[in-house]
Formats: sequence, structure tokens, C-alpha cells
Amino acid sequence: MTIPLDISEIWEKLAIPRGGKIIYVVLDGVGGLPDISRGGTELQVAQTPNLDALAKQSSCGLLEIVGPGITPGSGPGHLTLFGYHPLRYSLGRGVLSAMGIDLELQEGDVAARANFATIDEAGKVSDRRAGRIATELNQHLCQKIRDKVELDFDGEFFFKTVSEHRAVLVLRGSGLSGDLPDTDPQQTGIAPHEPQPNSEAARLTAHLVSTFIDRVREVLADEQSANGILLRGFEQYHPLPGLGDRFKLDGVCIADYPMYRGVSRLLGMKILPHPGGVEERFQALADCYGDDFDFYFLHVKKTDSYGEDADFDHKVKTIEMVDNLIPQVTALNPDVLIVTADHSTPSTMGKHSWHPVPVMLSAATAKIDAVDSFDEYSCMRGSLGTRPGTHLMGLALAHAGRLEKFGA
Amino acid sequence: MTIPLDISEIWEKLAIPRGGKIIYVVLDGVGGLPDISRGGTELQVAQTPNLDALAKQSSCGLLEIVGPGITPGSGPGHLTLFGYHPLRYSLGRGVLSAMGIDLELQEGDVAARANFATIDEAGKVSDRRAGRIATELNQHLCQKIRDKVELDFDGEFFFKTVSEHRAVLVLRGSGLSGDLPDTDPQQTGIAPHEPQPNSEAARLTAHLVSTFIDRVREVLADEQSANGILLRGFEQYHPLPGLGDRFKLDGVCIADYPMYRGVSRLLGMKILPHPGGVEERFQALADCYGDDFDFYFLHVKKTDSYGEDADFDHKVKTIEMVDNLIPQVTALNPDVLIVTADHSTPSTMGKHSWHPVPVMLSAATAKIDAVDSFDEYSCMRGSLGTRPGTHLMGLALAHAGRLEKFGA
Repeated sequence: MTIPLDISEIWEKLAIPRGGKIIYVVLDGVGGLPDISRGGTELQVAQTPNLDALAKQSSCGLLEIVGPGITPGSGPGHLTLFGYHPLRYSLGRGVLSAMGIDLELQEGDVAARANFATIDEAGKVSDRRAGRIATELNQHLCQKIRDKVELDFDGEFFFKTVSEHRAVLVLRGSGLSGDLPDTDPQQTGIAPHEPQPNSEAARLTAHLVSTFIDRVREVLADEQSANGILLRGFEQYHPLPGLGDRFKLDGVCIADYPMYRGVSRLLGMKILPHPGGVEERFQALADCYGDDFDFYFLHVKKTDSYGEDADFDHKVKTIEMVDNLIPQVTALNPDVLIVTADHSTPSTMGKHSWHPVPVMLSAATAKIDAVDSFDEYSCMRGSLGTRPGTHLMGLALAHAGRLEKFGA
Repeated sequence: MTIPLDISEIWEKLAIPRGGKIIYVVLDGVGGLPDISRGGTELQVAQTPNLDALAKQSSCGLLEIVGPGITPGSGPGHLTLFGYHPLRYSLGRGVLSAMGIDLELQEGDVAARANFATIDEAGKVSDRRAGRIATELNQHLCQKIRDKVELDFDGEFFFKTVSEHRAVLVLRGSGLSGDLPDTDPQQTGIAPHEPQPNSEAARLTAHLVSTFIDRVREVLADEQSANGILLRGFEQYHPLPGLGDRFKLDGVCIADYPMYRGVSRLLGMKILPHPGGVEERFQALADCYGDDFDFYFLHVKKTDSYGEDADFDHKVKTIEMVDNLIPQVTALNPDVLIVTADHSTPSTMGKHSWHPVPVMLSAATAKIDAVDSFDEYSCMRGSLGTRPGTHLMGLALAHAGRLEKFGA
């Protein structure tokens, strides 16, 4: 059975192209679990006078980003915060990988993930990762492929390093399709699959991919380990409706990591040039704050990275560093200031988790509550309650005065 | 626009066939309301040191099983706890009644509820319940019907006592259909409805039912009150996808009552033989705990029965008895231990109710909260919040490490 899902469609109808400015400060993976030996979660242990002061003037709560028990990847986590229901707006691996290395996709491009691999004399895969070659060798080989491989069609290809054995292939041209099976057999001892088209529409693409793979084999013939490639996750890129189309927001992204820049670009935000470290990003926010944009997305990655490393202490230190920078944001007097996360990454687990993330929303119209500390437990008692992550954008728009009344 | 409502479909996609073990201890109808003369709810009044100790190490909350204001029957209540949205996976009365007397249905069987009734000389219903005959007489009459009635078709029928005037008819064979109206007119003074087929597919079934009713009338001709039957809730049985298919769980059911055994069988769980009383069931859990199963469902009925009897004191005593047995479960060190109910049955009401039920989830990755007592009021302050009952299975799977990350 089905139900009308998506409350964001109502916001689309009610959104007006004027109103207050909204700042999102997203502390990636900041949500945690208590470490008993340290006396609390990372947010509880960290000294955060500025975040706590902001909590005292905010409406606080918890966001369950995708759904109960579901651990969000970074892509779905951010789409959710931006008002894009992650079960409706899905991004495949190929497109995410391309976006993850700052490759600007165009409508109709076909992207796939690539592995450098070792193919033996009988044509069978002997190592799906080519011994996890160094990123530098990968870059060298990609350059070689770009220099020496030509595809005879009315279009072009991109083949770029991700890291170690990983790369991305993008085909650009007319008449392409992503309806192709993986060539990666997912096991050793057998030959790579032939790129047969799954449908008539994918015939040209399959031919191009097959030719590309053969030419790469020739170019890499002298390589010891990385003498071939395996492809998987073919996907054609179709742009999503942007924040402007949907919510009448001119957005700007201030992020360091390609993935977050990529998702933001996908939603039509302007991407600021790489500003450097976290402090520079807060400065960049202050510098660009003004008439050009309605929506400001500032991303901090290290809270997640240290969580993934199970490094409780450095996650705490990162939170404290961010806390130090918060006054620069409040000094801008944004109409709506939101601090939250795209998912939890408890240091005690060393990976993303499903636990709801704390959120605080400061605005003149916010229902300020008694929460006086920005952490996973205090925010439980906040006036926003515990709610789906998809609610956030609607609350942001409303508090910014950017949604009209529903009905008379 | 519409999407699949059911977040459990996402769990299906993310579930992996490995990870921790999950124990559900379901205290049927344990949720209650305060009895002012006794100073609280049944759970508040009961002395429960072990449940309370477990609460201190758990993530607590409340589950609204089916939806706001909706009083769950036992079938939907349990389906919900097992991750089957009760608005989507419905079990009709015919099938539930058959399962409720341990009748093992096969795909394609048609089941209906039956009442013994009094039919007057004019062929009109004078008592729809035949004066609520004793169960013993019902059993005697059912035996007589089974002995003397024959149906001329390539199949067989089952006609079995439920209790008092209630029985179940099951037809088994090919070419059957449940698309038949009730013969029970729901009032006295008129004749039973003829079993006309609602569709062409039900022609054979209607003929068989009509013949069966006539033959039963002949067999019961000498009975004073129970001289006929009324049928309602015709339904063809189609198995549901099992816990293994959906969530990669090998489940086992340790329950005494046929209804719960039936629902568990329906979901592909192994059903342990009747182990006797509550203490024996806890022992049976310990005995079967190990490599064979991932999911253990232990059911306690008496909390509900005493609630239905409006017997506050015995409900309290049952809770205390269960509390005594909890250390046997915690001693197994399950990866996920959940204690909850399928619905409330407040002794003050003497029947099932819609009030959310307390739940606690103990696991290494649980967000342990400040709740230090397992009851309806303390759990309100827990880290799970108040949420739909359908969320529980996803949370169980996540905490057991049995769900992959959603998206990249």
C-alpha cells in the first residue's frame, strides 16, 4: 500500500521567494553515544559554552534522519536535511562517486565506478583491486589512459582517480544509457563480464564501454598488477530539482569535501572555492553573507572522520574548535540558524549509526525551551521533539517567514 | 505522489544474514492505567527489581502499536512487533480463528467463523448464539458433524470448536475462493443468508458451503437450541513472507496460546512444543538459545488475561513472577534484548486499549537513558521516545548489527 509521503511537496506550494536568511551549520556525524569511561557523549564531554548558549535561545530536538534503525550514508543524510526525502531522491553509487571527486556531471552523462584490477594470462581476474595500488600510481595510469585511449563517438569520456585502486568513468554524449550490468564479476578466477546492454537503449553505451575496456587493456599491457579495469554501478545522471525550484532559495555551499560540494551542486547551490580549513570556512561564511543568498550551508567534516576513527578525544576537540567559531555565525544575526548533523558517528562504534541527531534552531519565532546544552540527551527534552529528518527544511522555511499560510 | 509507506521495505533491502541475536520478551497486554486506590499502574505497583535494573541499562520508550486511538487485537499487535505493518499485512477473522485453535492452514484453504445458532420452524434465526451453549456440547456437536457430514468434492473440510457457541470451518481443496458473503444475518427473526458467490471464482465454494449448511441442519435436527450454524468472515489463506525472507532472521516461538503460535508459524518461525507454564517457557528459551536461531520470541499471556478480568492484583503478581525470571534471560547475554507488549490491557478497563505500551531495548549500541523503572510513565522520558510500534523491528535489527548502511 502507498500513502502520500512527502510533506515537502506542500512546502513547495507554500514557499515564497522572500523572507529571512537561513544558515545550516552541519557537523558531520557529530551525534554520539556515551563512553562510560569519559562520562558521556562527545558533545556532553566537550566544553561548548557557545553552542550551549545558543541552545538556550533555541528550539531543540532530535532528528531521525532516514528512519528507525536506518544508518544514513552521507548522501541521503544531506539530502534529508535539505528537504529531499531520501527514499524518493536517491543518488546511485556511480553518480555519487563522480560527484565525490568534483566531477561536474551534465544531464545524460553515464557514470560508473571503476577498479584497477589484475587480469591473468587466461583473461581471468586474479585480483579485483590490483593489490590496492597507491593513489599516485592510479593517477599516473589514469593520465596515461586519458592520453592514449580514444573513443570514436560524438562525445567524450572522463576517467579519474578516486583513491588507491578506485576510479570513476564518465561518458558524455547523446544517446547514452546507464542500463548496463557490471563488468566486475565480484570474484576472482573468472573473466570479467562482457558489457552487454540490458535494453536496446544501452546498445551504443555497451559498445563504447566494451571498446574502452579493450583499449585500456592495451594501454596497461605492461603493468604488473594494474593491467585492467572492472566497472560497476552504471548510472545515468538526471539532475534533481534545485533548492531554487522547490523552495525559492538561493543557496551557497561552504564545504571542503567533494561529496558535500557535489550534493550541493546537484541541488543548484553555488559552490564557494575551497576555502581551506574549518576556520577559513567560517570566515568564508561571514564574507559571503549578504544579499546574494538566502540559504547558507556550512559543512564540518572532521567530527565524522574522528568518529569513524573511534577517536573520541579528537572528536571532542573538533567540537570545541567549532564551538569557538560559533560566535562568528551568531554575529551575522541570521534569521534562522540551525546546528545539526547528517547522521551520528559514535566514537564508541567507529562508524555511522542510526541514532537520532541533536538539532537546534534559533530564530525570533522559535519556541525556545529549557534545553541549556547542545547534546543528544538534553535535546531529547526540547520543543522540537524527536522527529523525522525530513521535517527540518520545512521548519527552517517557516521560521524564516518563507512559507505562506495553508488554506484560508 | 506516493511511495511505499512501509519503512520495513527498506529494512528488507538492508538486512544481512548475520549479526547479533535478538530476544523479544512480550508481556501480553502489560500496559495499564493508574488505579488511584492502589497508587499507580500495574507495572508501577509491582515490585520489579530485575526489570528496573534492565531499564537502567536500556534505551526506553513507548510504542503506539497500530496508531493513535486504535486498540490492537492480538494478531495485529504481534504482527506490528515483528515488523509487519498491520494496515498492510492483515489477517482476517477466519484465518485468525483457525490459527487460534492450532489449525495449521495450507495455502488456498478457505476459513470462516461459525456460530451454533437456533433456527425456528419457519427457518428463521431465533438465537444467533444458540443460548451460548457450553464448550463441551460444542465439542460433541463438532464431532458429530465431522462424523456424519460428507462433502462430495476433491478435498476435505475441518470443523472445530473454538469455545461456547463458536467454531471454525475450513475447506481445503483446489478451486476454492473466499469471495462469499456471510450467511449470518446479524439479527434474529429472518432466515440466514444463502451463500451466493460474489464472483464466478467462488461458485464451487458457495455450492460446498450451501451443501454443508444443509447437511449440518439434518445432523443437528434433534438438537433443542444448537440446530443450525451461521458462517461469517470467509477468507482464503495466503501465507505471508516470513521473517527469513524479509529480515534474514531464523526465528523461534516460545508461546503457549494457539493464536501466538499461529502468527509465529505464519511468519516462518519454528514453534517449540508446548513447554508448560511461564517458568518452563523461560527455561525453554535458555535451552534453545544458541546457533540455531537469530530471533527468539517469548510470550507471556497472563498479564493480558488478568487485565481482561479487571484483576489488578493478579496482574501485578504475574508481572512480579516474570520479573523473577528476567535474570535467566539477561544471563544469556543476548546482543539485543527487548521487553514490551503487543497492546495495553488496563485492569481498570478490563479490556485491550489503545494506550502506548512501554518498551525497553538493551544492547551494546543502545542509547542508554536515565529511565530507571520499567513502566508506562518512566518510559515516556526514554531515549526511544513515543513512536509507532512498526519501528521496533528496525531498531532491533539495527542494534543487532543486521542492517547495512543506507546509501553512500
